[in-house]
Amino acid sequence: MSKDFFKQHEREDSGFTLPLEELLEQLNFNEAGLVPAIAQQHDSGEVLMMAWMSREALEETLRSGQVCYYSRSRGTLWRKGETSGQQQALKSLRVDCDGDTLLLQVEQTGAACHTGRRDCFYWRVDGDQVVLDKDTQANPDDLYGKLPG
Amino acid sequence: MSKDFFKQHEREDSGFTLPLEELLEQLNFNEAGLVPAIAQQHDSGEVLMMAWMSREALEETLRSGQVCYYSRSRGTLWRKGETSGQQQALKSLRVDCDGDTLLLQVEQTGAACHTGRRDCFYWRVDGDQVVLDKDTQANPDDLYGKLPG
Repeated sequence: MSKDFFKQHEREDSGFTLPLEELLEQLNFNEAGLVPAIAQQHDSGEVLMMAWMSREALEETLRSGQVCYYSRSRGTLWRKGETSGQQQALKSLRVDCDGDTLLLQVEQTGAACHTGRRDCFYWRVDGDQVVLDKDTQANPDDLYGKLPG
Repeated sequence: MSKDFFKQHEREDSGFTLPLEELLEQLNFNEAGLVPAIAQQHDSGEVLMMAWMSREALEETLRSGQVCYYSRSRGTLWRKGETSGQQQALKSLRVDCDGDTLLLQVEQTGAACHTGRRDCFYWRVDGDQVVLDKDTQANPDDLYGKLPG
């Protein structure tokens, strides 16, 4: 049903416009009511992290301009940087061709990763080995104090 | 359990190395046996698409150097570009801090998106509207003939 909406519009020309509300109604949230959201540093192109958004998190993000995810482990809205100060200011938000993934272009303050690294993708496959190849730029104990990540 | 593995190693210094097999055993595949995989053009930084990998798809990708996903709609391995010719040559593969997302840096031949667009993120939110802002660079009828996308 929702797939049909995206299918129906996939041959439109560049410049085609719809009310946001109409597209939000058609987003393909999964059975838990979530969509994956990729955060990318808007100017450098670094992929910082991937997390999940509920419709409520998405609407708050669009309203406030500060990225808000849904924490699957805590079961609540997760206002990125609320504890750590490592916020993400939204520069643009995109939806993919079948309406089941979001791409957020953001201005990341400090470290996106809870480990204090700039981004979360610090394990790199190298042949039959995997190498941790990024250093922390902040101490997670300073970012989070005694709170869990 | 698998989260513990990643937690346990998150304070290692850059350069820390493990056997790939050990990390693969600990990846956090979801209840369907899949992890999300973000494909990024290695040099420009464009985020091209997000799809899913099973362990088998991941191992084939690492072995062949050509990206292979798992198609949730078809329920089979999806050798990207096998029908359309729009392949992704793997340049590097990264795993995130909690082992539940992959980042693939690739050399994309042609269009990553089944619609014939370079990437899948062609809907951009603009205030209370959403704008389709990317043109196709290939005709999907030419890419796929009479086959479904």
